[in-house]
Amino acid sequence: MTQHLFDQAIALTAQPDNHFSGHTSPAYANMVGPFGGITAAQALNAVLQHPQLLGEPVSLTVNFAAALADGPFDVVARPARTNRSTQHWMVEFFQAGQTVLTATVFTATRRETWGLDDEPLPVVPPPDQVAPPARQAPMPFVQRYELRPVTGDMPSVWDGSGSSSSLSQLWVRDNPPRPLDFAALSAMADIFFPRVFIRRAKSVPVGTVTMTVYFHADSEQLKATGSGYLLAQARAQVFRNGYFDHTAQLWNEAGVLLATTHQIVYYKE
Amino acid sequence: MTQHLFDQAIALTAQPDNHFSGHTSPAYANMVGPFGGITAAQALNAVLQHPQLLGEPVSLTVNFAAALADGPFDVVARPARTNRSTQHWMVEFFQAGQTVLTATVFTATRRETWGLDDEPLPVVPPPDQVAPPARQAPMPFVQRYELRPVTGDMPSVWDGSGSSSSLSQLWVRDNPPRPLDFAALSAMADIFFPRVFIRRAKSVPVGTVTMTVYFHADSEQLKATGSGYLLAQARAQVFRNGYFDHTAQLWNEAGVLLATTHQIVYYKE
Repeated sequence: MTQHLFDQAIALTAQPDNHFSGHTSPAYANMVGPFGGITAAQALNAVLQHPQLLGEPVSLTVNFAAALADGPFDVVARPARTNRSTQHWMVEFFQAGQTVLTATVFTATRRETWGLDDEPLPVVPPPDQVAPPARQAPMPFVQRYELRPVTGDMPSVWDGSGSSSSLSQLWVRDNPPRPLDFAALSAMADIFFPRVFIRRAKSVPVGTVTMTVYFHADSEQLKATGSGYLLAQARAQVFRNGYFDHTAQLWNEAGVLLATTHQIVYYKE
Repeated sequence: MTQHLFDQAIALTAQPDNHFSGHTSPAYANMVGPFGGITAAQALNAVLQHPQLLGEPVSLTVNFAAALADGPFDVVARPARTNRSTQHWMVEFFQAGQTVLTATVFTATRRETWGLDDEPLPVVPPPDQVAPPARQAPMPFVQRYELRPVTGDMPSVWDGSGSSSSLSQLWVRDNPPRPLDFAALSAMADIFFPRVFIRRAKSVPVGTVTMTVYFHADSEQLKATGSGYLLAQARAQVFRNGYFDHTAQLWNEAGVLLATTHQIVYYKE
């Protein structure tokens, strides 16, 4: 069986002393350089592959320090602190001796406790009743996902009119389908096109600077999600002087909120 | 003039090679160890004090790797990557040779661009029409803030009944008042009592594990805010298996959204 393109893309080769080597994936290329989601998944994967890993991911913050050049990169993933049931990681990517990414990861062994979802799955039609996008963006990574935009899709007319809301909701899964895991969820947390496009209906240079993902599900809940769709919802809060944020959620079809995520995106003009 | 307790608390002494030394502040003590907000402000301050700083903070992620012991700590703040107008920082706190905090900070020189607030100031009574809390929590840091809870205050009866909503809104400023800056804003981003208390009306052990702050204002906008109140609003999204998150916003009285922030909090039972 051929390995899924996602697994090929995030593969890292272990090296001595907390080092790993990786390679950007043409299959997950964006306009310039790789899709940020795949880079986030690679950063998380360094922790997941590390022999000293304790528990499962609870949070991930990835800072995109420079555009990754197509080609190889070096990874250092260091357990900065290991407690009884929790662990704090620092991750750094290097190309040509320069830092191109920094990340921190928090992992923990989780125990069953009282719980409650405060953000229910929005009322939306199921994925099989939602059509794929009318137009497909030309970047290779977009073909790696099945997208079913429910509301707030990419503008169809770029006339500067803009939408009155920055809310987008879409169903998403890997293409071809692949059982969900933490790495795939990290990548899908970055699936949203830039909120500035929907609000302005104007194409301006953009780039995610930092993204945080909170994992509310353990591996069993991800396994139960299988290769089903996730409902991904994002909304901007502020656009100001070159940077905007968005806050986002990802539920599975059963309505379990698997992850919440936030990012800051640079924009020009 | 005596220095404000906040400035005393976040003071760091520069040491060679990206090192600083700091000290926990009894004035900002929490139940056990320091108020997380003051620790976050200290982490940011290491970057703000660093001679190589470029621009102003845009994002801060602080990971509380272990409870800080009362006493001195060592800080390493390293500019991992410096671009033309942006910079990525890695910060680490040590006590007794062990990592107790990790952080990443993104700074940038900002330019005026198109902008828009997507999250307006909620309709709430102004601070002078809101009474201070009926009961004051016993932790010293609480006395360092003037609090005017609008909605979702700490439960008055701890009978396990819980509120149907995890939303809290409160006006907050330093006590005594102090002109707002990035460090103070970082601390206030952690002003919310744990969402699990409001949802359960039950006291369980808790501790913030990681917090991210996005700064949407530059120093001029903070200056314009002066020593006025901020409206702080927080809402949980998920409580599950030992960890819950919250997503929060901080506006000034003029309605400018100054910061958005998120955190993951550990809870027992």
